[in-house]
Amino acid sequence: MKVGIIGGTGGIGKGMALRLSQNHEVIIGSRKEEKASSSCDDCCDFLKELGLPFNLMPSTNQGVVDNADIVVFAIPPETLQVTIDSLTGLEGKIVVSLMNPMEKGDYFKYVPPEEGSAALELQRMLPQSKVIAAFNNIPAKKWNQISEVLDYSVCVCGDHDEEKQIIMELVNSISELEALNAGPLAVSATVEAITPLVINIAKFNKMRDVGVYFR
Amino acid sequence: MKVGIIGGTGGIGKGMALRLSQNHEVIIGSRKEEKASSSCDDCCDFLKELGLPFNLMPSTNQGVVDNADIVVFAIPPETLQVTIDSLTGLEGKIVVSLMNPMEKGDYFKYVPPEEGSAALELQRMLPQSKVIAAFNNIPAKKWNQISEVLDYSVCVCGDHDEEKQIIMELVNSISELEALNAGPLAVSATVEAITPLVINIAKFNKMRDVGVYFR
Repeated sequence: MKVGIIGGTGGIGKGMALRLSQNHEVIIGSRKEEKASSSCDDCCDFLKELGLPFNLMPSTNQGVVDNADIVVFAIPPETLQVTIDSLTGLEGKIVVSLMNPMEKGDYFKYVPPEEGSAALELQRMLPQSKVIAAFNNIPAKKWNQISEVLDYSVCVCGDHDEEKQIIMELVNSISELEALNAGPLAVSATVEAITPLVINIAKFNKMRDVGVYFR
Repeated sequence: MKVGIIGGTGGIGKGMALRLSQNHEVIIGSRKEEKASSSCDDCCDFLKELGLPFNLMPSTNQGVVDNADIVVFAIPPETLQVTIDSLTGLEGKIVVSLMNPMEKGDYFKYVPPEEGSAALELQRMLPQSKVIAAFNNIPAKKWNQISEVLDYSVCVCGDHDEEKQIIMELVNSISELEALNAGPLAVSATVEAITPLVINIAKFNKMRDVGVYFR
C-alpha cells in the first residue's frame, strides 16, 4: 500500500518517511511541491549514505490524497482546518491522525477540541473517511534516529475494524514497534493526552525522549 | 511514617497493605473495625506463612485518619462523598488518591467528575489536605501477588512539592516500582484515564494485567 504523509517535511513527518520507506512506497507531501522535493532529496541522500533501501517520492498534499491509499496527517493540529479546506478526494480513504493538541505553560497541557480529541475532530470534518489514531506517543526525535530501534507500544484507535487492522500492520512493520488495539476512536482522547504527559515526565524527571510501553 | 488505608479491606487496599507492610507501619481501615480486624488477621497469617515481615494493625477509617501520617483513599470513587462525610480531622494530612472513575460498556470509559479528576474532586472536598495522586495504573491483581516483582512506572501528581516527594519515596519503597513526578494535580486526569485504557488494551489484545512503563 502507498502511504502518503501530509506535512511530510516537518520533523515527525520526515522521520516517519525515513522509517516507512524501508518497507513501503511513501509519498512526502507538502503545501509546496519544491519543499517536498527538497525534503525528499535529503531523505534519499541520507538513506543512500547509510546503505538503506528507500522508496520515496515528493508531491503536494493534494498529490498525496490523489495517490496514496493511506493518508497520514502529520501536521500541527492548529493547521488542520486550513489543510482540510485545501484538499479534495479524501472520501473513502484511510486517514491516520497522530496529532496531539497541547498548550505549553509551566507544563504541557492537553487541550482537546470540542469533539473530544484531534482524531475525533478530523473524523467530524471527514465523515466519509476512515480515521484511525496511531503513532501519537512516539518521541519526535526518535523517528529520525533511524539507526535506533523503536520498540514502543503504539495505541491504535478507530471505529473501522478493517482499516484499524491495516494500520496496526503498518505500525508493526516499522522497526520493533508494537501495535495495540486500544478500542474505538473515542479512546484517542486519552492516547493523545499521553503525549503532553510524557513530555512533562521527561522534563520533571530529567529524562529524554520518553516513550510508553504497555506490558 | 505511618500509612493508613481507607478501604484497606478491598482488593487493592488489601494488596497495598501487604506490600507496604514490608517496609512501613500500616493501618488497615474499614467502615467496620471487625472487618478490618479479620482482613488484618488474614494478611498477617499470609505474610507469616511466607516468612515475610509485617507491621499491620486494623482500625476504623476514622482510626486511620487519627493515627496515620499518610492517608490512602483506596475506595471506589462513587463512595467518596459518603466516606468523606463520615470522617473528621483530615486537615493538614497527606492524602493519596488512587481512584480512577470509569464506566463499563463495550469498553471502559473514563468518566471524571466535574472537577476534572477524582483526585481534583478529593482536593476540592478537602481544601486543607495535601492531595497527591499516585498508584493509579497498577493492575489490581498484581498488588496481591506478593512474590511477583512490581516494576511499573508510577505517575505521582500534586500541587504540594514536599508531600509529593514523600509519596514518591513511598512508591519507590515498594518492590521495584519507579515513581515519576508527573506534574501538578491537574495532570491526574490523564493518569486516571490511563487505567481504563490499559484495561481496554488487555481486553482487545488478549493480554493480562497490563501496566505502564514510561522510558
